[in-house]
This record gives sequence, C-alpha cells and structure tokens, in this order.
Amino acid sequence: MLTSPPVAIVMGSQSDWPTMRHAAETLDTLKIEYEARIVSAHRTPERLIDFATRAKADGFKVIIAGAGGAAHLPGMIASMTTLPVFGVPARSKALSGQDSLLSIVQMPAGIPVGTLAIGEAGATNAALLAAAVLALSDPEIDVALEAFRREQAEAVPLFPVDDD
Amino acid sequence: MLTSPPVAIVMGSQSDWPTMRHAAETLDTLKIEYEARIVSAHRTPERLIDFATRAKADGFKVIIAGAGGAAHLPGMIASMTTLPVFGVPARSKALSGQDSLLSIVQMPAGIPVGTLAIGEAGATNAALLAAAVLALSDPEIDVALEAFRREQAEAVPLFPVDDD
Amino acid sequence: MLTSPPVAIVMGSQSDWPTMRHAAETLDTLKIEYEARIVSAHRTPERLIDFATRAKADGFKVIIAGAGGAAHLPGMIASMTTLPVFGVPARSKALSGQDSLLSIVQMPAGIPVGTLAIGEAGATNAALLAAAVLALSDPEIDVALEAFRREQAEAVPLFPVDDD
Amino acid sequence: MLTSPPVAIVMGSQSDWPTMRHAAETLDTLKIEYEARIVSAHRTPERLIDFATRAKADGFKVIIAGAGGAAHLPGMIASMTTLPVFGVPARSKALSGQDSLLSIVQMPAGIPVGTLAIGEAGATNAALLAAAVLALSDPEIDVALEAFRREQAEAVPLFPVDDD
Amino acid sequence: MLTSPPVAIVMGSQSDWPTMRHAAETLDTLKIEYEARIVSAHRTPERLIDFATRAKADGFKVIIAGAGGAAHLPGMIASMTTLPVFGVPARSKALSGQDSLLSIVQMPAGIPVGTLAIGEAGATNAALLAAAVLALSDPEIDVALEAFRREQAEAVPLFPVDDD
Amino acid sequence: MLTSPPVAIVMGSQSDWPTMRHAAETLDTLKIEYEARIVSAHRTPERLIDFATRAKADGFKVIIAGAGGAAHLPGMIASMTTLPVFGVPARSKALSGQDSLLSIVQMPAGIPVGTLAIGEAGATNAALLAAAVLALSDPEIDVALEAFRREQAEAVPLFPVDDD
Amino acid sequence: MLTSPPVAIVMGSQSDWPTMRHAAETLDTLKIEYEARIVSAHRTPERLIDFATRAKADGFKVIIAGAGGAAHLPGMIASMTTLPVFGVPARSKALSGQDSLLSIVQMPAGIPVGTLAIGEAGATNAALLAAAVLALSDPEIDVALEAFRREQAEAVPLFPVDDD
Amino acid sequence: MLTSPPVAIVMGSQSDWPTMRHAAETLDTLKIEYEARIVSAHRTPERLIDFATRAKADGFKVIIAGAGGAAHLPGMIASMTTLPVFGVPARSKALSGQDSLLSIVQMPAGIPVGTLAIGEAGATNAALLAAAVLALSDPEIDVALEAFRREQAEAVPLFPVDDD
Repeated sequence: MLTSPPVAIVMGSQSDWPTMRHAAETLDTLKIEYEARIVSAHRTPERLIDFATRAKADGFKVIIAGAGGAAHLPGMIASMTTLPVFGVPARSKALSGQDSLLSIVQMPAGIPVGTLAIGEAGATNAALLAAAVLALSDPEIDVALEAFRREQAEAVPLFPVDDD
Repeated sequence: MLTSPPVAIVMGSQSDWPTMRHAAETLDTLKIEYEARIVSAHRTPERLIDFATRAKADGFKVIIAGAGGAAHLPGMIASMTTLPVFGVPARSKALSGQDSLLSIVQMPAGIPVGTLAIGEAGATNAALLAAAVLALSDPEIDVALEAFRREQAEAVPLFPVDDD
Repeated sequence: MLTSPPVAIVMGSQSDWPTMRHAAETLDTLKIEYEARIVSAHRTPERLIDFATRAKADGFKVIIAGAGGAAHLPGMIASMTTLPVFGVPARSKALSGQDSLLSIVQMPAGIPVGTLAIGEAGATNAALLAAAVLALSDPEIDVALEAFRREQAEAVPLFPVDDD
Repeated sequence: MLTSPPVAIVMGSQSDWPTMRHAAETLDTLKIEYEARIVSAHRTPERLIDFATRAKADGFKVIIAGAGGAAHLPGMIASMTTLPVFGVPARSKALSGQDSLLSIVQMPAGIPVGTLAIGEAGATNAALLAAAVLALSDPEIDVALEAFRREQAEAVPLFPVDDD
Repeated sequence: MLTSPPVAIVMGSQSDWPTMRHAAETLDTLKIEYEARIVSAHRTPERLIDFATRAKADGFKVIIAGAGGAAHLPGMIASMTTLPVFGVPARSKALSGQDSLLSIVQMPAGIPVGTLAIGEAGATNAALLAAAVLALSDPEIDVALEAFRREQAEAVPLFPVDDD
Repeated sequence: MLTSPPVAIVMGSQSDWPTMRHAAETLDTLKIEYEARIVSAHRTPERLIDFATRAKADGFKVIIAGAGGAAHLPGMIASMTTLPVFGVPARSKALSGQDSLLSIVQMPAGIPVGTLAIGEAGATNAALLAAAVLALSDPEIDVALEAFRREQAEAVPLFPVDDD
Repeated sequence: MLTSPPVAIVMGSQSDWPTMRHAAETLDTLKIEYEARIVSAHRTPERLIDFATRAKADGFKVIIAGAGGAAHLPGMIASMTTLPVFGVPARSKALSGQDSLLSIVQMPAGIPVGTLAIGEAGATNAALLAAAVLALSDPEIDVALEAFRREQAEAVPLFPVDDD
Repeated sequence: MLTSPPVAIVMGSQSDWPTMRHAAETLDTLKIEYEARIVSAHRTPERLIDFATRAKADGFKVIIAGAGGAAHLPGMIASMTTLPVFGVPARSKALSGQDSLLSIVQMPAGIPVGTLAIGEAGATNAALLAAAVLALSDPEIDVALEAFRREQAEAVPLFPVDDD
C-alpha cells in the first residue's frame, strides 16, 4: 500500500495507447512517475472496480483515463474514488471522438471528470494538468512545470516558414 | 432467487421517471410484470454492481435501463450481465439527449446495448422490445403483443382533423 | 415453415456486407445458425414486405438489420413483424453514419428497433444481443455466451505495449 | 380509378397536421385540389403499401409526405411509385427535426425524395414545388403560381418597422 | 426560344462535375436530353441572373443545381424562376456537405428547392426526380423510368458475397 | 449618387428586425448614420440585384446583412459588390441558427463575407466592426469607438451579485 | 500576497452567476473558502491579465472559470498560470453550450483546461474537482469530500415515485 | 511607429501556415503589403498582448488571425484593439474545424471578429475582405480588387469538362 507512483494512466484498450502515450511521455519529460494500465470498463468491469476502489489506498494521487466511443471509463472510475480524475476522449472511428467527448464530459452533478481535448493533445494536457495538481504540494514538479512552460513559449517561432 | 419479475426497469435518478414510466405503463398494458428501481451508475456504483451482477440469478430476463447526459448505466449493466439490456437515452437539459444517445449506443464490440429513441418514445419501445423478447418463449405475451400492434394500427385515423 | 435458422441477418445492399459479416462471424463463433440476405427497403420493397411479413412464420426468432444513410430497413421490418429487430447503422460516405444512426434509432413509440453502434462494432454487438435473447430459452447458447464473455475479459492485456 | 385529385398530402400521424396543413392551405390558395391522409409507415404498413402502390393508378400526380423522427414515410412511398415524392421533415421533440431531415433526404441512389425545409416552411414549399411540377402541363396553375410569386414579392415591405 | 432540352444541370464550379455527372449519366440512361453548365452564384452572378430569369422562356422544364459549402445556387435560381428546381449538396472539404445540405434545404416559405442527398447519390436522384416530373406528361419517359426501376430491383442480389 | 449614409443594414424579412435593430442601435450610439432596408434574396431577387449592384455607387461603404435559415442574402450581396459585407446569422426556428451560420460563413474562395455570431450579439458586433472599418479614415468614429470600448470595460462589475 | 483563499471562481459576466453559484454553494457545503469575481476575457482583457498572472502569487491554488459562447476565459487564464484551471461551459442562447464546450475543451497541447459538463452540473462538479485536488494535501477537505460522496449516495432513493 | 504594413497576418502556430499562406498569396496578388507572424494565444500570451495592444500604434490597419481548435487568437486580439479583426478557422484534426469556427465566430456582444470560412477558402477571403476595407480609402487597391473580381468571373468556364 502507498507504493504506487503519483499518477495512474488507464485506458480502455491497447488501441488507446498511441493516444495515451502522449500523457506518458509528457510525464517522463517532467520526471513524474506513473503507471500505465489497460482497464476496460466494459470487458473487464471487475478490473475497473478493483482499480478504482483501491486507487486512493494504493497511493495514487491523480488518475488519467482515456477511452473512446461510449467512453465510460473515466466517469466510472470517478464514481468509485474521490481522487481527481482527468478524462481523455479518444478519436473514434465513425464520429471522430464527438461520442467520446460527450460520454466523458457530460457527467451529472456529484461526480466530476476534468475533461481534456479529443486525442493526443488531450493526453498531453492531462499529464500537464496532473503535474499542475501535484505541483501544489511538490516544489520540484512546480519548478519543472514552470520550466516546461517557459521552454514551450520560447520554442514558438516568430515567423512562419514554407516547408515545401 | 428466481423470484424476480421478468423485466427490470432501472434508471439513473428520480428525474428519469417521467420518461421511464412510459416503459412501466406499456408493460402494464401487456400484463408483463416488472420491477422499477433507481440505480445511479455514478452516485451509487455499489448498487449498480449489486444489481447487475445478480440480475440473472435473481431471475430477471430483460433489463431496461434509462439515463441521461454521460449515460453510463445501460452500458455498465451490460458489462456485468449477459442478459439483454435495452437502453433509453433521456432528454438532457443542454444537449436534448444527443449526449445520452451517443453515450448509450456507441458501445464497443463485445458488450451490446440495444438502444431506443431519445425520451418517452424510447421508453415505450424498450418495453415493447422486452415484450418481443419474452414473447419468443411465452405465447400469452405473444398474443398480447400481436393484439397491441393490431389495435395500435386500427387507432390511426384515416384523415387529419383540425384541432383549433 | 419453421425451417429457418433462429437469426436473420438482412442488409440494404452488398456494400453493407463488410460491416454485417461481423455479425455473421460472431454468430459462427457462438455456433448460432443464421441466414444472410440482401433486402433493399427502397429498391426491393416487395422483397422487404415478403421477408418481414413471413419472418415469424418462417421460424426466425431475431432479426438483425443493417443499413446506411436514410436507413429505413430495420424500422420497416419492425413495422411488419413482432419479432425483436436489432438495427446496425452503417458508416455512410458523407455523414459517417450519423444519418444512419438517427434514421434507425429515432423510431416513434409503438414500433421498436434495438439499435447498436455505428459500423463493425454494432454488427458484432447485434449478434451478441441476438445471442443474449436466444440464451434465455437455450442453455447451450447461454453457456457459449458466458464463455465468450469470460474469454473476452481474459484477452484484455494488463499493460499497453508500444507497437513501433 | 383516375378520380383522385392531382396532389396527395400524406403524413405519419395527426400530430403532423399542424405542420402539413400549411401545404394544404398553399394548395387552396393556388386552387389545386388535393387529398390529405394519415399513413403511418410504422404503425400502418399495409395502408402505406396500399396507398403507395396504387397512387399512380389512382390518378395522383405528385405526393407530398411529411413525417418526423425516423421519418421513413416519404422514402418508402417513393420506393413503391415512380410519381414525384416531396418530403417534409417535421420538427421532432428531442432533435428539432435534424433526425427527420436526415431520414428523409439521405436516400440512396435509385429512389429520390425531393426534400424541403424542416417544419411549416417546408410544408408550404412542398405545395409550391408540387404546383411548379403541375404547372408544366397546366397553364392555369402556371398563371396562378406566377401571380403568387409576384404578390409575394410585392408584399415584402421596403423598411423594417418596430413592433413594440 | 424553346430550343433548350427539358433539363438543365447547373453547378457552381468545375469541381462539382465529378458529382453532377452522375445526374448527366442517369439522364443519358433514360434518354432524356439535358444541358450542363457552370454557373457560379458568387463568382458569376450575372450569369446566374441570365440563366435563371431566362430558363423558362428558353424551354427548360426542370433545373438540377449542385453546389457546395455556402451553396446558394439552387435557392437563387429558384428565386428567379417558377420552374421546379432540384438541389444537390456537394460534399464539402471541411464539413462533408453538412453546410451544403443546410444551405440548400432550409429555404424560407415561398421559394422551394427540392433537395436530394449529399453527393453522387443525390445527383443520380435529382435526375430520377426530374424524370419523374417529365414522365407526368411524357409517356416514353414514364416507360423508361418504370423500366429503370424494375431493372434496378432485379439487379439487387439475394445474398451477400465475400469479395476478398 | 453618393448621398447614402456610410452603412447599409439589410435583412431578409421584417422578422429579422428584432435581431438587426441591435446593429442599428449600436450605430446610433456611435453616431454613425445608416439606412435599414428589407431585401429578400429569395422573394425579391430584383431588389437584391438593384441594391447590391448600386451600393458602391450610391455611396455606401459597409454593408451589414442579416438573414436566417438558408441565408443567402449576405453572400449574394457580396457577389455583386466589392464593398465589405458583414453577415449576421439569425436564430432560426428549427436549427437555432446553425443553418444560418453555415449558409453565411462557408463562402467559397473569391467572395468574402465577414460573419458575426448568431443573433443579437452578432448584430451588435456587425455594427462595431463596421465602425472599426470606418474609423480607419474617420477620426471621430475612432474616438467614439475607443470611448465605447472603454466604457464597456468599465461597466463590467467586479463581483457577481445574487439577483433573487 | 498569499492572502487569497484556495479557490477562485471567475466568470465572464454577471449572466454566468446563476450557473457558477452552484460552484460557490458546493464549496460552501465543503467549507472551502473561495473568491468569486467577474473577469471578461473580451471586455476586460487587462483584468484578465492581472488576475491570471498574479493568481499563483496571490495564493490561489485552483481556478474555476466559467464562460459561454466563444468562451476564451478558462483557456486564456490557463495560458498565464500553471495553476490547475477547471472550465465550466455555460449554456449559450443559440447553441445551448455546444460552442462554449468546444471553445473550452479543445485546447492545444501545452495548455490544459480540465473541462466539466455544460451548465449547473458542470459548476457543481468544478467545485468537487477543486476539492479533490485540495484534499490531496488537506485531510479535512478529504474527510469532507468523502462524507459528501457518502451522503450523496445515501440520498439516492431506491424506487421512483410518481410526482403527480 | 507607423512603419508597419497595412495588414498583419497572425496565426497560432507554424502548422497554420499552409492555410494562412493563402491569405498572404492573395495579398501578394493584390499588391498589398503585410507581415506574417506566429502568435500563440496560449503558449505565448505575452507575445499576444504585445502584438495586440501595439498593433494600432504600429500602423497596422487590418488584422487577419487564423487558429484551430479552441481558437482564441482572433477574439483575444480583438479584445485588445479596435482595429478590424478577421478570423480564419483552421481545419482541426478531430472536428474538422467545427470547434475552430464556433470558438472564433461566437464572440459576445462588444468585441467583434469578422469570421471567414473554415480553411484555405477562409484565408483567401480574409485577404479579400482586408482589401475591401483598405480599398475604401485607397483607390489603387480598389482598382486592383475590381480587376481581381472581374478576372475571377471571366475564369469560370461555361461548361464542365471530364477530367479522366
């Protein structure tokens, strides 16, 4: 117990990994530890229950959950823990993530999921938001996050260039 | 065990009852017994797990589940039982049920939810679909359903009338 | 009469087969017999009427119907039979299946179509829902379905892997 | 046979009449005879088949069909006749007619439905389009239609006025 | 004057031709003569005015107009003629024709455009609808149209086949 | 000639005035003269052509055009003048202005319409944008506009207050 | 400095208060202090800059920002601070909050906004999510939040009741 | 001061350049000078503030701003200047620019952004609209713009041609 890293990255299936790895890579950049797991709300509900009900006792502090289509994973995790849950809507085949977004963000009053953008940008930002939360009580992460933002600003070129 | 009526009508909150009572009333008309319960996937996940994992052993044969917004109830029940689950998207305040519909119907391969129309019509039809399923092995329901359909057809007037 | 297999898979055109074969393959896996036919509601309305009005007498128990665009096939079959009808919205060229979904799911009170997700996932799930219905009176299918679900759960990996 | 007026106005239910009466009133203005009937594609499929397969022999020349939700009436009539069919999407409760519009307009190649705007404007315009079709071989209707358009233009005020 | 063929096919730009040629080819099949022209409502408004105000006197009987995006061509033609106008929404780059569809179909009361499906199917169907209109006073077209529909029905295969 | 005020406010019908009067009132506030006219692109195309082709010679500098549904007025004016045209999508009955917005904003390359928000806010902003354009060569308007913006900023309260 | 309460509730205008007060009331329930301010990203950009650039130094820990339409407030605050920002899309007049939702949630990679549901539910949940974040380092809030959730679960009735 | 060219083209990132270069090329054609810059509202808010608050004093007359997703750049620039701002919604990955469009066009009353079509057409048209604005006080641009429009009209072919 309490041996878990601060962040859990969970996703509905292996097919969400190309999206969710952007969360992992961003946490790597900020030197924040995490654990990545596949938890299918629909195909493995027992795994979902196990994970969500134990996450707090296990020592996780923030949960990043990505899923697509009728994306129930983030909301169902949130229903079983009071830890902050950040949801990432994956781009879906037919509806490009519009279904994922609405399934994640439109939670009823009482159980919050902080939802990020559809796809890779959302995964990256879920990691940054997790870092912002952890930074409140971890000065090292705060320093890393401020640096990340500064470097990000400096990396924006002043003028567009033709690339052909 | 096995003392349950054939149909369970579950809904996310009391506010879904004005919609879901159309399912109840339709089952009444067809003389099919049912039990109506409030099970909030998000606020009462334990109740959800209890209900869904025991539904089959309890003797239910068909489950009608209605919910709105990020409507996870039908899909999460379906994830924990092999009974047929029929989902009713409730009209939601901001998005008129578009979120409810996508959250219910866009289930991933492996866990089906047969989804009906948004709102009252969907609730009525969930009951009729449950009746159609039960009619496969219950000739009385079959007779009642055929009669319902015949009477419904006969009740359609031939000509429109002004009502002002 | 009564020589038909329990499940009919009908679709609006040959172009729906790449979607609907997922229903057929899922039924194969569960060892449930079926018949697959092309019935265009618009181009072959007589075939539609023949099929739908005789389906029950022919011995079918569940009908799976897939169509795209102004997808009238599932609803029109449902209007002519009391058998349970499950609709699969095909992805359409311009609107990615949003038109198919609304044309199938938004049935008026009185004639139900249990609607599944857009595309292949929906076709697979229509077969699983048909199996769930048949399992209510066929213990072998019930066993097969429970096994399918168990194996499906076990096949979900615990951790994501990079595939590059 | 051949005793029918040139235009048939059909609608899915009495509840469509407040919309469809705008078609009737417009035809009245143009002194074009019509017959208004309720034909529910889903609740009275036999009436649909009777109407659509006989419409041409009965002497109808143009069919105006209005329906809402999963609006299959215009397309199914079109599937059973070669007469021109003009569809009017009714405003639906949850989706404001977006479902009606897509269910009517997105017909597959081979069976056309000329679709008008959602609601009353669409009903009025279906009548005007029917008149335009009939005017091709009926100079009186042509004169009436030209006059209608001229008067309509003249009735547009030059300047807006406050109405409070 | 009166030397024009019965059908005009107009389109907003050369880029609409891959869509609109399906209208032309369908008219060819039915041996109905037509003229195809590019008339940009926005870039060539004078050409639009010339075409639309003279179309009736020129002898056209039905106008098929295709356009994409803010598709004003069908409606603006309809505003300047009482001939029946059938609109074909082209698939647009960003919004896949949703903008084209709404821009064409949502005409105000007074000026009708009979709108077909987005893209090629809509172009084919505009031709079939034009044929249905012309068939009302041209028995040869009526025979051709009935034959087309019969052959179309016969061409629908009974069973799906794997194509891999 | 050249006797017109700098701004024309045109709208498709009297029913757009409750929206478009917000443009008029904003211009009043800024002491910019304008003329308000009803020009229906569809019911009065000749009035449209007259207005648009003469607007520049008449001395107008900026045109504000509001319309709803298949809103062709702004784009068709823009097709006949090189004056800047700003479009205001009116809220429409069925689709709440989504059709108006797409019909106005999705203009093809070559003919621009600067589009504002749906409804009253858009009308107000069209006036402010017209003022911004005129301010480029009229210092008095520039001063008035800067003052308007300053006062607007100062009018924003610091804290929310309960109003019940 | 550092005299601020832990939570800031900011909103684009007084008209957002009926929505955002649900955040305030939820924080009251949990005995978490907060400050509510009106900051219009568009009408008072200087106030926005002042607030956002000083928020961290002022001692705020979490920012809840609500806005409607082209809702830029949450994202622009997030661009000027590394504090966690939670966005609440207000229901907008024409588009019911669909514009607000997309304007808030679709942030580019690099600047996260954790977005909640449209309207009151979203405001309540933003407060709960802020509490979840603060609870990570404040055991009293953790206890209050766990209690809130337990009571919320217990308040869900078992059976629906007719209210007429 | 006052050394800037009349038009500024700003965009949120280098990835917007393939879209926004169409604005640049159109201004080149019309011989209107401009400066193209990358200004990320979210990653470089200080650069945004610098640019927007100085643009008028720097001598810019019209600002063209392109951005995608939660596209805040045009509106935030407009909040800090009274110069006319024209916004170009970039096609976004998941939502094809629907998010960009709503984020740009749905500005609240008080701060206008004249919004063009999604993507390249919008960029081209932003340049043409800027030219129309500048032409009001620059006869050379007026002549160039009139010529551009005339040539554009003449370049529209009369008849479609097969390109295969």
